[in-house]
Order: sequence, then C-alpha cells, then structure tokens
Amino acid sequence: MLVSVFIAISLDGFIARKDGDIDWLTGDDSEESEDHGFGDFFNSVDALLMGKNTFEKVLSFGQWPYGDKKVIVASNSLKNLPEIKNANLQLINGSPGEIFTKLEKQGYKKIYLDGGNLIQSFLRDGLVDELIISIIPVLIGDGIPLFGEVNQDIKLKLVDTKSCNNGIVQTFYKVSK
Amino acid sequence: MLVSVFIAISLDGFIARKDGDIDWLTGDDSEESEDHGFGDFFNSVDALLMGKNTFEKVLSFGQWPYGDKKVIVASNSLKNLPEIKNANLQLINGSPGEIFTKLEKQGYKKIYLDGGNLIQSFLRDGLVDELIISIIPVLIGDGIPLFGEVNQDIKLKLVDTKSCNNGIVQTFYKVSK
Repeated sequence: MLVSVFIAISLDGFIARKDGDIDWLTGDDSEESEDHGFGDFFNSVDALLMGKNTFEKVLSFGQWPYGDKKVIVASNSLKNLPEIKNANLQLINGSPGEIFTKLEKQGYKKIYLDGGNLIQSFLRDGLVDELIISIIPVLIGDGIPLFGEVNQDIKLKLVDTKSCNNGIVQTFYKVSK
Repeated sequence: MLVSVFIAISLDGFIARKDGDIDWLTGDDSEESEDHGFGDFFNSVDALLMGKNTFEKVLSFGQWPYGDKKVIVASNSLKNLPEIKNANLQLINGSPGEIFTKLEKQGYKKIYLDGGNLIQSFLRDGLVDELIISIIPVLIGDGIPLFGEVNQDIKLKLVDTKSCNNGIVQTFYKVSK
C-alpha cells in the first residue's frame, strides 16, 4: 500500500497558522483555477486518511469537499463520527503501524495522508512513500509545522520539481527505504 | 545596497544540527565538484556578513575558506577578532538597521549574509533582498532553523528554480518590498 502526502507549506515550513488558518495559502493569487495537479492526485487515491484536527478543520468549512471519496479519520479518542450527507466516512484507531496494517488488509492500494500530526508520526515510523510538497512563497513565522522530530535522518529522492507562475514550487520526493 | 542570502537547508528547514554539524549537507553525494552556483555568487559580492556563531563555526574548520574576500563579523559582545593569516576581517556591531547603514556608508554594494540568527533578524527588519536556498533532500528532525518569527507575513517572489541530479532543489526568491 502506497502512502502519499500532497500538501502545501509556507517557505518556512508551516501547513497552517497556529489557529489552523490557511488564508496565506491563496494570498492574492490570480491563478485560482490552477490546482497544481491535485485533481489528478486525488483521483489516483483509494482513500484519504486524516487526523482528528484536520477532520474538524474540514468540517468548519461548512461544505464537505471530498464528495464520496472514502475518508478515514484516525483518532484514538473519537467514539464515532458525525453524519455527513453523501460522505463516505470511516473511523480508525491505533498506532501508525496498526492503522497501516488494517488499511492494507482492507484492500487499499494508495492512501492520501493529510494532517500535520499524522504525517509526522507516519514519517517517523517509516510509513510514508511519497511527499508532494507545494512551497508557497511566503514566510509566516509561526504555525503548525509540516515536519517534526525524527528518530534518524530520513533521506528522500527527488523525483520531479515544477514551478508555477504564482511562485509556487512543487517538489515530488520518494522516501528512501 | 543589496543583501543576499545563499544557504542550504534540509527539507525540514535546518541549516545545521543543534551542535552546528552539517554532515548531512553532503551525505553520500557523488557530485562533490558541483557548487550550485556558489562560486559565481561569491564572486559577485563585496563582502560576507556573518554572526559570531557562524564565524566561530568557520574557525573550527581549521582552514579559512574565504581567501581575501572581506568578511564582516557582526557581534555586540566581541571586542576584537583573532588574527587570521591573509583574511580580510572587520568587526561590526549594532542593530540590523545600524549595521546596514554603516556598511552602505562604507560603500558596499552587495552583501552575502550568512548565519541563522543574523538572517532571521535581517529578514524581520526588512533588510534582505534575495534568498537563494538549496533544499537538501533529507529530514534531520531538529537543529538550527533558517527561519524564525516575523512581525508580519513576508511575501517573496520566485525568480528561478533549478534541480540537480543529487536531488537538491535550488530556489531563488526576491523579497517583496
């Protein structure tokens, strides 16, 4: 099972401000129609795996953005998930390794991993295969970091890099295993 | 006076490990002869401006790497600098703004700014014009960060990006003013 991260960060490494705000992501970008390959990526995954914080942030948007794509919420505290019309939700718990094994047994082939804490813990446990990172040309100074502590250096292999007119640099890495 | 940063960071944003070690910078890179444009950049600057920590780290290398290029050490605590054979050294003190003004008055046209603390304080005070950042494909988890707190978002303009065979992505930003 392939585990892929597709995420945007500020040049100083944040995925959101401390309060979860991502206003700086769009800025005064005039290229709103540009999805930086997200649509193709999203279509290529069987399911989206996110932590509780990310799930709650998504709920706060008001509109469910993932259609009927399978969305798996990893939480060791939630007992159940709210009903969301047309959403295809599943709750899962356990360590990153346990979650990985459960999902692989359920037949998933490619997972889109989202959320700072979950990405950090999956990376630390060697369970991430790919990182597609869009670097936004701004320094926000503080916020929720994409990366955290690791037990040992994690080497990556650069597969591709693209830059867009709006100054976003998208890098595609595979994790060396 | 143009203030330029030319620096390498891990993908997770560190310029060195906590103890200043930069072993991860080279790794098992087989392209040692590749300087990623550093030579041309270095030749284009009038002087290198660095903080005390960076200066002391450079001294620990044993061999002075900057030839007779003017090297200005910013420190509010040092009273004088050691004698280094053939080196062209100057000590300076003051706030980033004061240092900038002094150097501009001394006739400098382009300064290469180095060192985490100094880069952070110059960025915070709006005194950096260009950032050339080489992103090394490794996560080291902890260390001395390139970026720090800012008083407000700092927007950048992407000028160029290059990727190298060894997986390094070099991005060239101008600071929007």
